[in-house]
Amino acid sequence: MDTSNAASGAPVVLSVDAMGGDKGPAAIVAGLSLFLKKEPNARIVLHGDQDTLKPLVERKRLTDRVDIRHADTVVKMTDKPSQVLRHSKGTSMLSAINSVRDGEAHACVSCGNTGALMALSMLRLRKADGVNRPAIACMWPSRNPSGFNVMLDAGADIRADQDDLLTYALMGASYARNGMDLPRPRVGLLNVGVEEHKGRAELKVAHEMIAKAAPAGDFEYIGFVEGGDLPSDRVDVIVTDGFTGNVALKTGEGTATLISDALRDAFNATIFSKIAALFAMTSLRRLKKRIDPRRVNGGVFLGLNGTVIKSHGGADAMGVYAALKLAYRLGQQGFSDKLAARVASAASLAQDYHQDGESKAEADN
Amino acid sequence: MDTSNAASGAPVVLSVDAMGGDKGPAAIVAGLSLFLKKEPNARIVLHGDQDTLKPLVERKRLTDRVDIRHADTVVKMTDKPSQVLRHSKGTSMLSAINSVRDGEAHACVSCGNTGALMALSMLRLRKADGVNRPAIACMWPSRNPSGFNVMLDAGADIRADQDDLLTYALMGASYARNGMDLPRPRVGLLNVGVEEHKGRAELKVAHEMIAKAAPAGDFEYIGFVEGGDLPSDRVDVIVTDGFTGNVALKTGEGTATLISDALRDAFNATIFSKIAALFAMTSLRRLKKRIDPRRVNGGVFLGLNGTVIKSHGGADAMGVYAALKLAYRLGQQGFSDKLAARVASAASLAQDYHQDGESKAEADN
Repeated sequence: MDTSNAASGAPVVLSVDAMGGDKGPAAIVAGLSLFLKKEPNARIVLHGDQDTLKPLVERKRLTDRVDIRHADTVVKMTDKPSQVLRHSKGTSMLSAINSVRDGEAHACVSCGNTGALMALSMLRLRKADGVNRPAIACMWPSRNPSGFNVMLDAGADIRADQDDLLTYALMGASYARNGMDLPRPRVGLLNVGVEEHKGRAELKVAHEMIAKAAPAGDFEYIGFVEGGDLPSDRVDVIVTDGFTGNVALKTGEGTATLISDALRDAFNATIFSKIAALFAMTSLRRLKKRIDPRRVNGGVFLGLNGTVIKSHGGADAMGVYAALKLAYRLGQQGFSDKLAARVASAASLAQDYHQDGESKAEADN
Repeated sequence: MDTSNAASGAPVVLSVDAMGGDKGPAAIVAGLSLFLKKEPNARIVLHGDQDTLKPLVERKRLTDRVDIRHADTVVKMTDKPSQVLRHSKGTSMLSAINSVRDGEAHACVSCGNTGALMALSMLRLRKADGVNRPAIACMWPSRNPSGFNVMLDAGADIRADQDDLLTYALMGASYARNGMDLPRPRVGLLNVGVEEHKGRAELKVAHEMIAKAAPAGDFEYIGFVEGGDLPSDRVDVIVTDGFTGNVALKTGEGTATLISDALRDAFNATIFSKIAALFAMTSLRRLKKRIDPRRVNGGVFLGLNGTVIKSHGGADAMGVYAALKLAYRLGQQGFSDKLAARVASAASLAQDYHQDGESKAEADN
């Protein structure tokens, strides 16, 4: 199948790993069903145990739009990436990634083990030209009109040097353009303060490099941002290393859960507060919808030759649906090729910067 | 004044920088007034512009318990720490720190510029023996019975090596014992996963060092924790470098603000939801009290010869009251001396570890 003409009306094909999620294949197929009803132009290649999947797909009457691809084994949540690399043959995860590599599908979605999914994706799809460290981009609830910001790296790698941070800025901007319809996204670099003198040495260098790359990268660079800006409307794309990004992401989720639990406790405390909760039901639902993590499900792997989306391991049908919708949108737009074109330029931008620095150093001498 | 016998009934004296907060000296004096009403055994040395402070103190009828110490100038929020070090003479901040150094007060509280306060505190109080990098410890709303966890470093330094992280574990445990009444606090090291193989190299070394130091340090080491554990009840003290800690702190605050704004919007959306909000008022107040950042106001500088507390720049009377209460508690217990005794042992623990490592390396050869 030629995947290049998806935009012209040909079906968008998504490759889905049906195994490996905490809620099992039934939740995945339920999510598929929601998704296929909304997107008549989509088709699915579903990877996993045939005997398990066939009855699930038949019961939802999806046989004409879902192509089951049998896989003997499953990558477990507890498997280490290094083990997975040695024993990936026959897994539904590898099979799902292969569909993208072979041009059979426009994008891959898996609820499985993040480390294993990244390791296998790198092995089969390879890093795009100019990318040293691929990144995971996640959506962050924000005050922006779309309701979200993008943050990367959310934890693909625990390190990122100045060149990686520049690549993340270009990839994040490309993702915001294609995934969120922002023609000229505002990019910020995460630091402990907004003043230029603050932060680690590599951040100061990255700050200069990203500022210089902004015109060519079609984004606006707003400089350093702080943790408090992650949900703000002054930035669209927040760039950081995968260690900081992962801690920030989990801190944000943990804080949101603490508050929603406290809210529930507050309304359950007395008879009177329980009655108040009934009156407030609509308002509480509105709030829940606004901060529902299932609406933002889907970490996108950026910097590979192909689009892979990591859905939350505990995703239910609604979460799987959100991840599929994102995959559909990116697949339809040929996102992976557009991104590759952008980052190919990143390598030369970084090179320019380093050469300028050297020439400047020579001139200073 | 001899500050060592505070526990025996002699007054606890707090040194307060009245200037430099965003809300001005009136908010500080209002906080003082609340505090002095609750703590009959406390006295205050108040540093700042005499002509401004005198009428404020008189109006609150605090003249018999507040000793005004005139200071000509103020450290501004926008001043860089390096500038402040050169031009600190005559500032209310330096004067407030000097009261602690001279043994006139048991602890110092300031709402001013954090970087400047840390720089001047290091200059005047000096680092305690065995401490390479002092840290700022902050309270984090949690599911623990006390309602809080301790996290450090919240941003005193952007770097921390393995030895610093061990020192932070010992200092954080000592703070939890003295400030929160936890005889044997549970300490965790912040990482991107709880598995032993995850994270940066210095974290793996710190992991081993802290585990080894736990019995001597009178704390329980629970190993790696993640961002989502910051508000959890499985840990009391979370250790991390100041870059990660500062991003996590601001991310948590930003997330909480986003949700509380969304909650307000949800209740203001329709006439019906406004009525519901009236019914839910008590529940919402209960929630607000639970996550009110003013209740946790006060970052404690750990690792200096003296106790300094940084109150939030925007603190109102309630926030200043919370910071004073914390200062009182720590001052009363002679916290600074107890901490110094603990960390003096840290240096030798780290040394033991490195020597063991070397002997082991020799044995392996």
